[in-house]
Amino acid sequence: MRLKTKNLNWFAGRPVVILGEIASKKLNIHVDEKIYVRHAGRKIFAVVDIFQGLVKANEIGLSKEISSRLGNKEGEQVDIESANLFEGARLIRKKIEGGELNAEELKIIVTEITNNNLTEAELAFFLSAEKLVGMTTKETIALTEAMISTGRKLDFGREIVADKHCIGGIAGNRTTPIVVSICAAAGLIMPKNSSRAITSAAGTADVIETLAKVELSGEEIKKVVGKAGACLVWNGALNLSPSDDKLIHVERLLNLDVEPQLLASIMSKKIAAGSNRILIDIPYGGGKMKTKRQAKKLGNKFKIIAEHFNVKIKPVYTDGKQPIGNGMGPVLEMIDVLSVLRNDPDCPKDLKEKAILLASEILSLCGIYFTRIKARKILESGKAYEKFKEIINAQNGSKDFDERVTKLKIAKHNKPIYADYYGNLEIGNSKLNELCRILGTPETTSAGIYLHKHNGVVKEGEKIMTLYSESPQRLEEGLKFLKEVEPFKIK
Amino acid sequence: MRLKTKNLNWFAGRPVVILGEIASKKLNIHVDEKIYVRHAGRKIFAVVDIFQGLVKANEIGLSKEISSRLGNKEGEQVDIESANLFEGARLIRKKIEGGELNAEELKIIVTEITNNNLTEAELAFFLSAEKLVGMTTKETIALTEAMISTGRKLDFGREIVADKHCIGGIAGNRTTPIVVSICAAAGLIMPKNSSRAITSAAGTADVIETLAKVELSGEEIKKVVGKAGACLVWNGALNLSPSDDKLIHVERLLNLDVEPQLLASIMSKKIAAGSNRILIDIPYGGGKMKTKRQAKKLGNKFKIIAEHFNVKIKPVYTDGKQPIGNGMGPVLEMIDVLSVLRNDPDCPKDLKEKAILLASEILSLCGIYFTRIKARKILESGKAYEKFKEIINAQNGSKDFDERVTKLKIAKHNKPIYADYYGNLEIGNSKLNELCRILGTPETTSAGIYLHKHNGVVKEGEKIMTLYSESPQRLEEGLKFLKEVEPFKIK
Repeated sequence: MRLKTKNLNWFAGRPVVILGEIASKKLNIHVDEKIYVRHAGRKIFAVVDIFQGLVKANEIGLSKEISSRLGNKEGEQVDIESANLFEGARLIRKKIEGGELNAEELKIIVTEITNNNLTEAELAFFLSAEKLVGMTTKETIALTEAMISTGRKLDFGREIVADKHCIGGIAGNRTTPIVVSICAAAGLIMPKNSSRAITSAAGTADVIETLAKVELSGEEIKKVVGKAGACLVWNGALNLSPSDDKLIHVERLLNLDVEPQLLASIMSKKIAAGSNRILIDIPYGGGKMKTKRQAKKLGNKFKIIAEHFNVKIKPVYTDGKQPIGNGMGPVLEMIDVLSVLRNDPDCPKDLKEKAILLASEILSLCGIYFTRIKARKILESGKAYEKFKEIINAQNGSKDFDERVTKLKIAKHNKPIYADYYGNLEIGNSKLNELCRILGTPETTSAGIYLHKHNGVVKEGEKIMTLYSESPQRLEEGLKFLKEVEPFKIK
Repeated sequence: MRLKTKNLNWFAGRPVVILGEIASKKLNIHVDEKIYVRHAGRKIFAVVDIFQGLVKANEIGLSKEISSRLGNKEGEQVDIESANLFEGARLIRKKIEGGELNAEELKIIVTEITNNNLTEAELAFFLSAEKLVGMTTKETIALTEAMISTGRKLDFGREIVADKHCIGGIAGNRTTPIVVSICAAAGLIMPKNSSRAITSAAGTADVIETLAKVELSGEEIKKVVGKAGACLVWNGALNLSPSDDKLIHVERLLNLDVEPQLLASIMSKKIAAGSNRILIDIPYGGGKMKTKRQAKKLGNKFKIIAEHFNVKIKPVYTDGKQPIGNGMGPVLEMIDVLSVLRNDPDCPKDLKEKAILLASEILSLCGIYFTRIKARKILESGKAYEKFKEIINAQNGSKDFDERVTKLKIAKHNKPIYADYYGNLEIGNSKLNELCRILGTPETTSAGIYLHKHNGVVKEGEKIMTLYSESPQRLEEGLKFLKEVEPFKIK
């Protein structure tokens, strides 16, 4: 059936179209049913809402999620047809009932995720099956391959392309901008693309965005990397492993860790981005890995997958007991990064030392010697800071780095938190991340937490942290959370 | 913040409100965030869509799902606040990570499901955890208790109240109207409430609705049962175990079977409905249970839970290898039921004999002797048919049974399917159910399948089944499905 489109200025958070009651009856299509919308050679999937009065009997209303992908002009005709059967759903059921999926079957599931043919609940079933039924190495490799093949690939035409990734779970911990600046200053090619926040207060992309444009096209990235040797961009706009973003969105509902998905997610994005020397930072003792043994087991799985794809990988096992750095939230983390790069005397030492360690491991993975000394020298001499400026200016296409830095602003409402008594302070990671989200991060870049103390002895009345938010209500909710959930303890 | 309501004529299939861009910025609330809407002492949960131009800066647009529960008049003010933290999500995560939940924790999850505080993806995680992590007997009992306590209860003030339930998975198999008519004609009190279709072509409620009103209030049900000794109504309007319907909706996405949920779902609805003598029909050899051993294991679990709640239960293990009866789809199944009740010579014998078996087991569970002979006599004498008429007329509040029967209509488009060659016919259950859904059931009551043959020898060119649909497009899709998925085989 053909219908006239009405492009609605409507962000629904999922692919929805609106039909009136007459059209839905004529088409024998019901609320929440799945349909295909066809226009100009494109065929995309949508769920039906019935909204009497908003559209005429011969019209279909399109949410922004649909019209942006369909590329139709208002008033153009589309064809719609019912879309009952999704092979993907049947295969997810096979997996959740204990089956093993082959490469072809995983490709079908990943393709349907990429095409938006599966609901979030179906993705949740798939993730649960991955986590609880588990996946063989063969399945994880096939999943990785499927995720790469359904997206775009980058190619920098260089023999050695370096990359780094942290499996996450540690609050703050914004080493990437520092590490990339050191490595690029040492002459490596490091086209770093990062995610936005998944379960944390900010992702690297959110932090960089406080100073620079991060949504660059593949062509723009090549230009920046050609100029500065490195970039610090958001991966979401690049369409590398596009199914990954949808799966991450669902994992995030419960802040769930699903190991096969973690492996496939990281490896598919790195390989699609053209990297072949990859450092994986695996913190343990807090965050996602409880013990060093558990961390090493995961590291070995990375190695097996990397071998299959012919890339060199180096897992580094780091301290995950507490947050790294003082700031949490996009602007507050950028302030930390700048203070380390500028060698401010009161910069967070833990962040600095970790960045030097990771940079030196990457340098040695790329065949360079005496890397620990070299990495420190590059940072302390200010060369890394110059490289960072160069990258930011290249991404912005302008030389206004200093001006942008002066415009960084922390949220206007704040509340300092003091120690109630003398004792040993213990700060958790995940609960601080939750607290930041209540305060408004990552959407509100100026919000978050600044730590005045790390784990160790505190005196009564000492300032432990300051909460920042643009909304007094969210600040109130943050204080309530602080009381109820206790993201830190004094013992 | 206070906003003026605009009640939209919008069925979204989930609890959604619409904010304009200005309001969402002022409130620091983003697309897909969760909020609470308060009005006149009610507090309900919703997800935010941003829809510029549909509502003013001081307005909030409410979907039907919200306004019907909130009970507000257009233009009345509501308060909204962000709703970041749901204890339920944290507890679901605990379960999916392998934990055991206590009664209090399960009560929290079930309450949040009942209040619509969890997304469908979160429900999918919960169901996956139930299935794959598993639940102890203690957890299953606590889940059942939580599901009962968050809904309404019926009380018929009688010592013995009989009920039956089939765990499902068999196509056709519409024994309930016949069994209830026999048992009520034998003098039992049998206030049967049934679901609409879950994974099948029709639920008992869908089938009864082709002749009678099935959405009755608790008071109306008592009146009908007082008059006829039995009823055949839909359970959805009764608010018995309301969390169950939401969970079933999500299970249905994959036609998934989750055993602890199946147990809690059935037991909570029966107990809340006031039943204390319950027959459970557990088909095996096809459908949900592959072997008799598996079926008996499930039957024993029902017994353990029943004992805790002090009700008598009788599991009956029946043949599940093929569909029971000839019709699949609301009207086609009603035609089968009527032909058995009327003792038509060509009525489906398998349906008749199964109904007699189940009815006699219920009679004996209620302390009656020689039940197999009695059940057959009641059916073959026409007493069961008279009782059925009485129940239908009581539910409709009128005596127009015969007139309603003459109005039953099968879909206008049809396609007979013939055997390609001589051999042994084998018909599956689940694929026929899928085929019916493609043809438009259960929403299109006149659609479905009529079987001319059951398992056994067929000759080349013999008619096996006829497909019915109101939409030629759906009929085409059905034929395509038939070729690709082969819901029957000739060997």
